[in-house]
Amino acid sequence: MSTRLELLSADACVGDQMYRLVRELYPICRSITGQGVRDTLGTISQEVPIHLSEVPTGTPVFDWAVPREWNVRDAYIKNSCGEKIVDFNKCNLHVLNYSVPVKKEVSLHELKEHLFTLPEHPDWIPYRTSYYQENWGFCITHRQFLELQEEQYEVLIDSTLNEGHLTLGELLIPGESPEEVLLSAHVCHPSLCNDNLSGIALNTFLAKYLSRFRLKYSYRFLFAPGTIGAITWLALNEQRAANIKHGLVMACVGDDGNLSYKKTRSGDAAIDRAAQHILKHSGRPYNLMEFSPDGYDERQFSSPGFKLPVGSLSRTPHGRFAEYHTSADNLDFVRPTNLADSLSKAISIVYVLEHNGKYINQNPKCEPQLGKRGLYRALGGRTETSVSEIAMFWILNLSDGEHDLLDVAERAGLPFCLIKDVSDVLRQHELLKETP
Amino acid sequence: MSTRLELLSADACVGDQMYRLVRELYPICRSITGQGVRDTLGTISQEVPIHLSEVPTGTPVFDWAVPREWNVRDAYIKNSCGEKIVDFNKCNLHVLNYSVPVKKEVSLHELKEHLFTLPEHPDWIPYRTSYYQENWGFCITHRQFLELQEEQYEVLIDSTLNEGHLTLGELLIPGESPEEVLLSAHVCHPSLCNDNLSGIALNTFLAKYLSRFRLKYSYRFLFAPGTIGAITWLALNEQRAANIKHGLVMACVGDDGNLSYKKTRSGDAAIDRAAQHILKHSGRPYNLMEFSPDGYDERQFSSPGFKLPVGSLSRTPHGRFAEYHTSADNLDFVRPTNLADSLSKAISIVYVLEHNGKYINQNPKCEPQLGKRGLYRALGGRTETSVSEIAMFWILNLSDGEHDLLDVAERAGLPFCLIKDVSDVLRQHELLKETP
Amino acid sequence: MSTRLELLSADACVGDQMYRLVRELYPICRSITGQGVRDTLGTISQEVPIHLSEVPTGTPVFDWAVPREWNVRDAYIKNSCGEKIVDFNKCNLHVLNYSVPVKKEVSLHELKEHLFTLPEHPDWIPYRTSYYQENWGFCITHRQFLELQEEQYEVLIDSTLNEGHLTLGELLIPGESPEEVLLSAHVCHPSLCNDNLSGIALNTFLAKYLSRFRLKYSYRFLFAPGTIGAITWLALNEQRAANIKHGLVMACVGDDGNLSYKKTRSGDAAIDRAAQHILKHSGRPYNLMEFSPDGYDERQFSSPGFKLPVGSLSRTPHGRFAEYHTSADNLDFVRPTNLADSLSKAISIVYVLEHNGKYINQNPKCEPQLGKRGLYRALGGRTETSVSEIAMFWILNLSDGEHDLLDVAERAGLPFCLIKDVSDVLRQHELLKETP
Repeated sequence: MSTRLELLSADACVGDQMYRLVRELYPICRSITGQGVRDTLGTISQEVPIHLSEVPTGTPVFDWAVPREWNVRDAYIKNSCGEKIVDFNKCNLHVLNYSVPVKKEVSLHELKEHLFTLPEHPDWIPYRTSYYQENWGFCITHRQFLELQEEQYEVLIDSTLNEGHLTLGELLIPGESPEEVLLSAHVCHPSLCNDNLSGIALNTFLAKYLSRFRLKYSYRFLFAPGTIGAITWLALNEQRAANIKHGLVMACVGDDGNLSYKKTRSGDAAIDRAAQHILKHSGRPYNLMEFSPDGYDERQFSSPGFKLPVGSLSRTPHGRFAEYHTSADNLDFVRPTNLADSLSKAISIVYVLEHNGKYINQNPKCEPQLGKRGLYRALGGRTETSVSEIAMFWILNLSDGEHDLLDVAERAGLPFCLIKDVSDVLRQHELLKETP
Repeated sequence: MSTRLELLSADACVGDQMYRLVRELYPICRSITGQGVRDTLGTISQEVPIHLSEVPTGTPVFDWAVPREWNVRDAYIKNSCGEKIVDFNKCNLHVLNYSVPVKKEVSLHELKEHLFTLPEHPDWIPYRTSYYQENWGFCITHRQFLELQEEQYEVLIDSTLNEGHLTLGELLIPGESPEEVLLSAHVCHPSLCNDNLSGIALNTFLAKYLSRFRLKYSYRFLFAPGTIGAITWLALNEQRAANIKHGLVMACVGDDGNLSYKKTRSGDAAIDRAAQHILKHSGRPYNLMEFSPDGYDERQFSSPGFKLPVGSLSRTPHGRFAEYHTSADNLDFVRPTNLADSLSKAISIVYVLEHNGKYINQNPKCEPQLGKRGLYRALGGRTETSVSEIAMFWILNLSDGEHDLLDVAERAGLPFCLIKDVSDVLRQHELLKETP
Repeated sequence: MSTRLELLSADACVGDQMYRLVRELYPICRSITGQGVRDTLGTISQEVPIHLSEVPTGTPVFDWAVPREWNVRDAYIKNSCGEKIVDFNKCNLHVLNYSVPVKKEVSLHELKEHLFTLPEHPDWIPYRTSYYQENWGFCITHRQFLELQEEQYEVLIDSTLNEGHLTLGELLIPGESPEEVLLSAHVCHPSLCNDNLSGIALNTFLAKYLSRFRLKYSYRFLFAPGTIGAITWLALNEQRAANIKHGLVMACVGDDGNLSYKKTRSGDAAIDRAAQHILKHSGRPYNLMEFSPDGYDERQFSSPGFKLPVGSLSRTPHGRFAEYHTSADNLDFVRPTNLADSLSKAISIVYVLEHNGKYINQNPKCEPQLGKRGLYRALGGRTETSVSEIAMFWILNLSDGEHDLLDVAERAGLPFCLIKDVSDVLRQHELLKETP
């Protein structure tokens, strides 16, 4: 615990562990409330010691109230022969999320008013919800929809929508400073892997990794249902939110797409600078997106009453991949290597936050004589200057109390980790001192 | 009069009305002073109640003085057979504008010293002036010039250049605020349609349209001779000029070219933002030009002693079309549809000025629950968010007292009129309040 | 001496004179100390009255100390037949600069440890130094290296490395203001023409030219060994450095490449604006480089304890031409026309500094009537406005005490010299006054 945060390269081992967690959570039927969320948080807590809190139905949370708790035991559609042609136990996406209980015989005509399909992807089952308007329904493939006969159907949704609780999972890893970094993943989606079991796995393993180090900032990991969960947390932790100085929302981080970073509301927060730097030096293409008030829980964190500097990390952003919110966002759609790469980059971003700082050159007048300290090549005249010599020059030149190490890295066009390592050497030689 | 300003799409009917005004004004021989200007303003006043003011010759106006008044009754060149080969009554461009009276016999040699032609356009008559240096002359086609024989010619210019007045036309449409929007068109050019009967028509019909609405700003319409007219108005209204918060000079707005906007001296005035926004969302190509101290009366309004935020609206800018200041800038060169489009865009720009404002989100902490107000779709999970939902999110997110609606529109990449309409809905639901 | 600075176009005559100086200095064996530097400064002082100062070995200069003085009388390698196969008298690059004395027999094996070659350019001799670590060595062509036989060699370096002095050359041309412009060239390189006999010639002839004029700023010309020379000067002139308001380091200004300007540390100093303007209007391609803390003595001037606004002028920048620090940087590599062009541009940059200023339009309200002063064409209506009329409009419009002439030139897109000349005319007509 005395070691300061180190970088982690994307390795197969951690990718496999993350993928195993995704696979374990995949079958659970989650929603914004209910046993599925509790089971999910329970599984996560086998990896990292998150704390669960239960918020009762009806609790006022700003303009909203915590809804009734939804649970579902079974659901099916039977044809007139009594065959189950749609079965919740085979795929929990079949049930319109938050369906009220129903058990009746219906004509094809009436049934169709409660069926949701994707005509453009006839073999995929859509994911649909009706949280705040009472309704019942089934999501099926469009191929099956077209084959339905004129007959009587028996529909059953054995669900409950009762007074209960909304469940939040939370972990605070305290650091030297009470200033917090918020790391958040939504946990309300049922059997969808990229959105957002991938984000859950990333948040879990990031927490696990960070807990091994002595940290400058405190890190708050939040596992909450989308929208209402973030709103509930903010409503119950309004004072605490003021401590949040940086933040990242994690979602859709397991697919094959390039990494994407969506900026904070202001667009020039420290987390924006850190994330852009890491992606720019990743050696791979990436997407940089301006803030917009859609997406995941950055919507709530960025509302004008909070204005928290929370960015968002993903691979292909939500809604931009065809499999989004369909049964095709399955265990084949995410891969261990992608999960590991996302974790590695998230750690690198945190690394910048942790190790960034302003230094003062202790020999500010002209260059110090690096050669007598063994820091400079003895033989002069060659064209090439080594990259660490260049880094030393940049650090010494810009360490005037106005530039932090990330400024130096950006202006030098060199990776932060190199600038940080070289600045450590300069500090050891007392050529550099941290600003008080 | 209780209605707030509405948009107007470019319609054939108003285009035809504007074109009729152009046609009616076309034959009049205008100059910077004289009866032609008076007649022009008289015709305009049949459409909108402009007020004429007469400023006497010799009145000092800053570094200038109001010049003598020029009028011309007749002018011709006769050949030795007594045939009128150049006749002012056929085209008033034939006379060098502000020619002193002359009546004499001249040799071809002497005549040629007073002839102006366009060798590169041999069938067009140029428009030339000599306001501040006494001279006489005729403008003819180059083809006719080449055919002139060695013979004696009789030249007559029956003009007067006497103590008199410079005439200004002005209309103030008062609004709720004493802050003014200046809308100006120069009226000194004789039979030239695009430059500037088109601008006169646009200014006239804009005044006519705006007078139907309850307005936030006061609107000052100025019809004045170029340069000396603007200087005279500013000299006589120096205090009043301080009320001008936005302004547009209108010229060359009837040709087939794309719309052009030339920025104000500072380049970032509210009128610059409004005009750029409207052109960007017009769905057609457009030109955006940085400020330069040439052009029309923006030269005077932008002088360092005034620095009024006055931009300039045109289609093909002055001097950039071959027909500029020639007889080819005639009734065929401008079209009703172009005039109507220019009017529609000018109204849209004014619409932004009128309806822009800063609002405060009344539920600033997290998103308000739009669904319970019927403002949000009931069924969740779909990829698409409707454009009005996107607009709501942007408005709610940025309504923190720091951003006006135009900021929201720009950041959202959505047209101002949509943002304005959606903000009206949010105000009706008391989710938004105007800043005091 | 009563004339204010004038521009100089690149002419063959001055180019030839500059080249003659390069040729005269070429054979001298320079280093960071020693007789070669003294002889070089002596030759320069035949052109301009520079003052030499001698700083004793051991003088502490910030984090450094002035090193021992190095001189070399002779050096060679003889093969076993007693033939001189490497001879310092043929090319002074053959000796590793700052070699300690050596005289001994060595095997091929031992010899090779002290040989430096350029495998990628087998016919060129590299330039190498070992100022701060005692060593001896020879630089030879790689072709010769490959031909060396297994035999005994006699090596001799008849050098001295003793208490002595570091020599600086300096010239101050006083101007009306105590504020200084620093113009600096490094003088430590032996037989290398572009790096930096070209810079020495430029600095010398710039001093010669400027001394003919009455100047606003004071101009300090510095001829110093690289790095340690600049450090020494700064250490001994710390108070004086505060007067330096602008500066240029001159190096590699004689090759065929396009002109390059490397910005100051802040990137927006007056010298940056001036140099960029001149290069932009040069009518030829050019390179603009952001500041970096490598290069020549701008490294020291830009250190955080000084932050002097010193840019750098070169043609092909150091290290970017293959001939850099090799025997191929010879008298064929630099040309009179390039030297003359570099001088002309350096004078133009100084011209901007000298003549830039803020003016106040004395008729700020509307345009003054230029015509009555003979400054504007009498005949109106033509499309073209002359460039000097455009320049007048820009100057009058922006002369509000906030913009200097260079701002006007930049915004007008016109060359500074035109804006300056036209502003002189406007001042003669009392339309413009300099700000106090």
